[in-house]
Amino acid sequence: MTAIRNSHKEEHLGSSAFITDIVIGMADGLTVPFALAAGLSGAVQSNAIVITAGIAEIVAGSIAMGLGGYLAGKTEQEHFQSELRREYAEVENIPEQEKGEVKLVFAQYGLSDHTQNQIVGELAKDKHKWVDFMMKYELGLEKPDVNRARNSAATIGISYIIGGLIPLSAYFFTHTPFQGLIISALLTILCLFLFGYFKSKVTGQPPLKGAIKVTLIGITAAAAAFLVAKVFNTLL
Amino acid sequence: MTAIRNSHKEEHLGSSAFITDIVIGMADGLTVPFALAAGLSGAVQSNAIVITAGIAEIVAGSIAMGLGGYLAGKTEQEHFQSELRREYAEVENIPEQEKGEVKLVFAQYGLSDHTQNQIVGELAKDKHKWVDFMMKYELGLEKPDVNRARNSAATIGISYIIGGLIPLSAYFFTHTPFQGLIISALLTILCLFLFGYFKSKVTGQPPLKGAIKVTLIGITAAAAAFLVAKVFNTLL
Repeated sequence: MTAIRNSHKEEHLGSSAFITDIVIGMADGLTVPFALAAGLSGAVQSNAIVITAGIAEIVAGSIAMGLGGYLAGKTEQEHFQSELRREYAEVENIPEQEKGEVKLVFAQYGLSDHTQNQIVGELAKDKHKWVDFMMKYELGLEKPDVNRARNSAATIGISYIIGGLIPLSAYFFTHTPFQGLIISALLTILCLFLFGYFKSKVTGQPPLKGAIKVTLIGITAAAAAFLVAKVFNTLL
Repeated sequence: MTAIRNSHKEEHLGSSAFITDIVIGMADGLTVPFALAAGLSGAVQSNAIVITAGIAEIVAGSIAMGLGGYLAGKTEQEHFQSELRREYAEVENIPEQEKGEVKLVFAQYGLSDHTQNQIVGELAKDKHKWVDFMMKYELGLEKPDVNRARNSAATIGISYIIGGLIPLSAYFFTHTPFQGLIISALLTILCLFLFGYFKSKVTGQPPLKGAIKVTLIGITAAAAAFLVAKVFNTLL
């Protein structure tokens, strides 16, 4: 749940964006279901309970991630459209003030008043380009891609499910939660490392460092969940 | 887990950023632990198991969110610094090519060659401002605030814990998972609605619409987790 929980500004297009979404969903899906299952393994005696809880988490997490991501993408789109309408209205109704705002963008980079005026004069000739400029350079808003948001949410949600099933699969083929935990940990740590490596490659980060980070987050979360669940289970 | 899972570009400063982090962590913490507990309520007979699983999820989720967010913030910082060094080197070593890149930014807005040259000429006088300009307008990178990333990760992680304890609290004071689920659902739906409302207010979205969205995500996730866990539990 780490990567897209943060406001990274990474631009990837086409298949690269698709691959990034897969890796994000899968690496995130590996972490929390793995940690939840590990936590329960120290506290309950039945694999069926670990599996049921893990499945419930995967369903909940993928819906929160997928549906939440989709709705957030729509909100972003609405926000962009309303700002766009506002900019068009402002360019129409208070052009002098808008010209002042363009000048301000360049004043901070030390451009002369003469050059500022020249820029504004030429920019204001084409209303659409002027508004485009304001959207991007005054407000810092890029046109969101609606299909991208929807596809991205679906890809991440599905990858979260697949990622989550990896740590959980160990509990299907073992007899006790303890056995399940051992296999699950080995399998998941390997996958976290591979996904961390791959994810860092795709996002242009040092791959080994990235792989270690992703793996450490997973191990820390699982160890903490294990300890806290054990303590709670003793108290209850 | 919805809001910051997406690459929103929202700028909030000071206390507003703090409040946004609290609301994000709490609204997200409400959703998945609520859905997990709801899912287990239909499948197990003991509140202790629901609580143990819920606690394990909250620990895992908050660590994934907090630690993951912190490390992602550091990665972003490193990325910015490496790009900054690269821009300084390019401005130093291949200034003509960099000037061409500045011109390209303005060419797409229909500015004349004459004005483009004038901008470049004035911008190139101050190397720092030139690099600042390239970072922001060519690469679209804003200087990340290290402290902000760390504080934000901590605030979100802690709020996730507090948010997650709300749906779980119902299972402490009831005798069966079914009773717990009823109280938990009433309590959580109320809180999701309030947080959705508050969150939308803070982020400048229509509050009622936002409240309904956040609540629906939570209910959908919980209902799906409940059904899937029940089916799995029958099969196992």
